[in-house]
Amino acid sequence: MENPSSNTEKLQQDCYNEWMSLQAKRMTELKEALSTGEKDDDKLRDLIRTAMRDFEDYAGKRSEHSCRFSSNYFAPTWNTCLENALLWMGGCRPSSFIRLVYAMCGSQTEHRLANFFNNTNQDIHGLSMALGETRGGIGAGDSMSDLTAEQIIKINELHLKTIEAENKLTKLSASLQEDTADTPIAVAAFYKEVIGQADMAVERALDKHEEDMAGLLVQADKLRLTTLTIIVDILTAAQAADFLLAGKKLHLAMHDWGRSREHRRIEASGGDTIGEVARE
Amino acid sequence: MENPSSNTEKLQQDCYNEWMSLQAKRMTELKEALSTGEKDDDKLRDLIRTAMRDFEDYAGKRSEHSCRFSSNYFAPTWNTCLENALLWMGGCRPSSFIRLVYAMCGSQTEHRLANFFNNTNQDIHGLSMALGETRGGIGAGDSMSDLTAEQIIKINELHLKTIEAENKLTKLSASLQEDTADTPIAVAAFYKEVIGQADMAVERALDKHEEDMAGLLVQADKLRLTTLTIIVDILTAAQAADFLLAGKKLHLAMHDWGRSREHRRIEASGGDTIGEVARE
Repeated sequence: MENPSSNTEKLQQDCYNEWMSLQAKRMTELKEALSTGEKDDDKLRDLIRTAMRDFEDYAGKRSEHSCRFSSNYFAPTWNTCLENALLWMGGCRPSSFIRLVYAMCGSQTEHRLANFFNNTNQDIHGLSMALGETRGGIGAGDSMSDLTAEQIIKINELHLKTIEAENKLTKLSASLQEDTADTPIAVAAFYKEVIGQADMAVERALDKHEEDMAGLLVQADKLRLTTLTIIVDILTAAQAADFLLAGKKLHLAMHDWGRSREHRRIEASGGDTIGEVARE
Repeated sequence: MENPSSNTEKLQQDCYNEWMSLQAKRMTELKEALSTGEKDDDKLRDLIRTAMRDFEDYAGKRSEHSCRFSSNYFAPTWNTCLENALLWMGGCRPSSFIRLVYAMCGSQTEHRLANFFNNTNQDIHGLSMALGETRGGIGAGDSMSDLTAEQIIKINELHLKTIEAENKLTKLSASLQEDTADTPIAVAAFYKEVIGQADMAVERALDKHEEDMAGLLVQADKLRLTTLTIIVDILTAAQAADFLLAGKKLHLAMHDWGRSREHRRIEASGGDTIGEVARE
């Protein structure tokens, strides 16, 4: 009979690989739709809905695979060291989505103004466009400079609520982590003559711990999905597409940058850094 | 010329291996001193001071080696998945030391009472000993049941302060993690045509991020050391020795239990789980 734990572990890694491939695919689709100056909001909204459904499906699969074997998700072997150091509850911080909105808004405003000032033949209409006074016809990569005051207020409110929700989950995680320094685990470790000697009570407690951590992962994924959904609802179709594209590019790039940094270290050490090699 | 990064990485892993060996050595020394019913507080205090100095030296070495290459410490490749899922700022939660005090106090009281009731020939003096009313002559493994009300109040006060300090560092870490979803990293990722394309500004930002995280690690190690120092000062020599022994046994056992669980999964999956094998 097939062992469910080994099967789960294989599924976890396959699930991640599929997720990364899907992100690359969606990135290309969003980029194409935006670069042609897609005016059809319905088409963009379709792409956005698909991207959100992807995340929902991914979270569902993680939840299914994490029960009893959740530890892998809190410092995955398939991630680079850099990504694992940035991890919060098996993924990115939901509040970092909001930081990304601010970053894109700031950089795209700069970008648009720089384009304006580089063109010496600007008239009043050109300046007005540069300052985001007209809303229509914004092409790829500058829609976020058009955030209205109302949108910014809503994003700010979401930021506060998200940080509060993150803090609650962080506290729950702290409490679960602390439990392992309590009965029965710590006490069994103390009274055992031989270090690491098998103990049924400890195994049951560690299984229970992994189950609880899996529950936390589900809650964290839910918060990530809710935060993304609210952001996407606040933004226009073009802004939401730009934002999702930025998120996917950041995730994919961070994985590659982390890998490049590890490669450089492996090369510098003559390729004998055991832990790093295993991640390739 | 030797590359400083590869050198640092090797030093980090050697430092951990030395630390685990030293913990095993100190565990044996503490166990021996306690099992002979060591009455000489000075001898026990010497052992305790040595154990504390070990931790101080270890923290000093980690600080030295983590600058610019701190990511390794936040999800070390030399740890098991289970340990990495329990990690807080590159080590255990300082508040878990206090949970360990409570756990030891509870279990040793139970242990002593069980011993009393198993002996049908107890007199009033025996019951008094069992309830911890006499303070002297407590042997190995039951001194923690003798915590006085005054000690418990001090430990409680320390618990609150420690959680507050932990929360401050957790917030700092959240802020550093969020920064990577901002300029220049997120913006460079968005504007690059090729995912993961080399970028000097990004490399500098990631180096700075690793330096800041190294600073956080130093602060977290300082909090761990301060918390341990205060606990040891609140406890009697026998209690402090019992507590340090429990901490070392828990750390060593958790590493072994984590490894056993991974072994079982590797065996169950026919030995083809890449990430797990690398940790051996």
